[in-house]
Amino acid sequence: MHAIEKVLARASGKREVKPGEIIQAKIDLAEVNDLYLQTIKSFYEMKGTKVWDPDKITFILDHYAPAPSIQAASNQKEMREFCKEQGIKHLFDVNEGVCHQVMVEEGLVWPGMILVATDSHTTTHGAFGALGTGVGATDLATIMLTGELWFKVPEVIKIEINGKLKSGVMAKDVILHILSKLGTDAAVYKAIEYTGETVAEMSIAERMVICNMAVEMGAKTSYIQPDEKIIAYVKERTGKTFEILKTDDDYEYAASYTFNVEDLKPQVALPHSVDNGVDIDKIKEVKVDQVFIGTCTGGRLEDIEVAARIIKNNKIHRDTRLLVIPASKEVLEKAIEKGYMTTLIKAGATFTSPGCGPCLGTHQGLLAPGEVCATTSSRNFPGRMGSTEADIYLVSPATAAAIAITGKITDPRGYIEMSGKGGEA
Amino acid sequence: MHAIEKVLARASGKREVKPGEIIQAKIDLAEVNDLYLQTIKSFYEMKGTKVWDPDKITFILDHYAPAPSIQAASNQKEMREFCKEQGIKHLFDVNEGVCHQVMVEEGLVWPGMILVATDSHTTTHGAFGALGTGVGATDLATIMLTGELWFKVPEVIKIEINGKLKSGVMAKDVILHILSKLGTDAAVYKAIEYTGETVAEMSIAERMVICNMAVEMGAKTSYIQPDEKIIAYVKERTGKTFEILKTDDDYEYAASYTFNVEDLKPQVALPHSVDNGVDIDKIKEVKVDQVFIGTCTGGRLEDIEVAARIIKNNKIHRDTRLLVIPASKEVLEKAIEKGYMTTLIKAGATFTSPGCGPCLGTHQGLLAPGEVCATTSSRNFPGRMGSTEADIYLVSPATAAAIAITGKITDPRGYIEMSGKGGEA
Repeated sequence: MHAIEKVLARASGKREVKPGEIIQAKIDLAEVNDLYLQTIKSFYEMKGTKVWDPDKITFILDHYAPAPSIQAASNQKEMREFCKEQGIKHLFDVNEGVCHQVMVEEGLVWPGMILVATDSHTTTHGAFGALGTGVGATDLATIMLTGELWFKVPEVIKIEINGKLKSGVMAKDVILHILSKLGTDAAVYKAIEYTGETVAEMSIAERMVICNMAVEMGAKTSYIQPDEKIIAYVKERTGKTFEILKTDDDYEYAASYTFNVEDLKPQVALPHSVDNGVDIDKIKEVKVDQVFIGTCTGGRLEDIEVAARIIKNNKIHRDTRLLVIPASKEVLEKAIEKGYMTTLIKAGATFTSPGCGPCLGTHQGLLAPGEVCATTSSRNFPGRMGSTEADIYLVSPATAAAIAITGKITDPRGYIEMSGKGGEA
Repeated sequence: MHAIEKVLARASGKREVKPGEIIQAKIDLAEVNDLYLQTIKSFYEMKGTKVWDPDKITFILDHYAPAPSIQAASNQKEMREFCKEQGIKHLFDVNEGVCHQVMVEEGLVWPGMILVATDSHTTTHGAFGALGTGVGATDLATIMLTGELWFKVPEVIKIEINGKLKSGVMAKDVILHILSKLGTDAAVYKAIEYTGETVAEMSIAERMVICNMAVEMGAKTSYIQPDEKIIAYVKERTGKTFEILKTDDDYEYAASYTFNVEDLKPQVALPHSVDNGVDIDKIKEVKVDQVFIGTCTGGRLEDIEVAARIIKNNKIHRDTRLLVIPASKEVLEKAIEKGYMTTLIKAGATFTSPGCGPCLGTHQGLLAPGEVCATTSSRNFPGRMGSTEADIYLVSPATAAAIAITGKITDPRGYIEMSGKGGEA
């Protein structure tokens, strides 16, 4: 069995499960964000009175933080009230940050757990050997009632990544490259396991990026076999140790792909699809109105660090604005402590409280018709960040920082000799 | 003549002006914010092609910074394009902060000037002996075309304020107290001059608060005779010296009021009018959902400093959220440098980029029906910060900080011995 199958078998009380089998699994953590008031409504519609286990449910207010509309404020208010009534203590309010980062920092993610959230990028937690997946309101409400959810045991695709990344090339470039080769339907209802020497070398934050964007290939979940780095981090955050499940040697993957990224160039995913990645040097001049460094795929400490290193002693281009939104309160605190925020603010950056920011088109830097945005976030569909007539280019934090200086799509390799990769999630 | 009359006389090429007289004055600075795209539309409707003087026009994107809607983004885009076309170099983008603070820091405000802006709180600049006033889009467009605007010379009301403020009592308390005594119609189309020993002792930021809120009494403009502190500050910011106009000894004020604030207690303006101020100890328990420290009447460095001093070693109450929004990029940089932001973030504050924030109900922390907000901003009309069914209480930054700790209206005097008043605007 694959480690993911072992997780599902354990959670469903079975000795063995097989791909395609429908099982009923116990959920370790159910997570609701402020886009999904409907979970509470569905809970009551299904005649719920008390949630199954208040300690295994978490609410986080990140998609509209702080509230940009009366409706968002009302939804957040109802969520706070629901948490109070139900004794749910894991309520993360508008100051905390993006769910996928906050859950990890708060020690709510560990190897072998099943984490289900109302957010598609919950595949992020494969970086910790957790089975993370996104669902809609009704499924989540079902978990709030029963503590369980059905799964079809997914087939697993192996993606092996080898080669040492060149200076100026980041995990975001790797995943955009993979997406450009495999396409957005490569893993529909399958799991993706990442392995190989590049992955082994990646920081925790980098692993989270490639696991996060597994869902852009349609993946149900993702997985990286936990190593010493992950085990130590989780132990520090949770104060506990966990049994690490391992894939059997005879497990047969549904498909296997190998990528050598040693000579990978910085990638840019052109509008309007995440699998439109091309080498940055293929791009002719594209002027950029807004650069956004943030979210669950570009707002961690090492992302802000690389941006600060590139932008230091420069100014943001006069025809460009730079938004920087740390992924969490902890990231913000460290970015202040290390001086990155001051560097970026002095250069002209606009930065707001931790949260999803404009990634999903709700507030904090939406795009006008005809505008161009380069972003470290995960999606560039039409209208994702405002007007359907705006163009969104997906890039790494290093590339985003270089663009902020020049005001156009710019190869970051001329701007930095990256001396190491950091290591904090 | 009053100094304000001398300003108007000089700007209209007259030796003398009298209250009630209609004059045509040359404008030193015309300022447009991102609520007022209509100024550009009106400019073109009036057959404008080139603005009268691009160096005397400024655009600032502060009311919707960063853009919370496609419409706001489009308006900002049009403003940026207009500035480029017209050669207007004083464009302050979404990272800069609130107009009334930014103009001062940027050296665009000086004694004896006339500053007209699309914002009612432009009376703020009376703190520098400038004639500041707010107008609508058509008047502002007229200035963009001609460099001039008509004024009816205002009568002047003198408000003398004496007595040393007690620890924990701030300029905001003084102006809320005055408003509670004189009412919102005390100075309709009149000017208010503040004088007295309390004013002389006030920091620049404190003077800006009382001048700002002169408009809440209907004042056309406000005035404080520039003293050495102001002259030195303006010289530093502008690099220039200016002739200081003085009121003649025989000038007859339309009315005079004297306040002794030595025993003034912290004030709270109850919903839903700015003149509903009462002593804080008159208030029974009022639970507060959101505290907001920011804006042109509560987001300056000394405001954030007092909040940090009160909140240090405390946590924000679990049923309350605290928003902190610095009034400008410069304030933000200094608040980071001095550790105030870290103190507040660690305590649980949410903070966003400099700008108006939720003050005017556009984004960044709107209120749901039934919610209660305590704010350092200037207005508590129904619906001002979101739902018309929310209650807004106006307070000083010190009171706001005490409320953030307890989650209910709280006298700050128990929380601080304020040791001095700071002095930076």
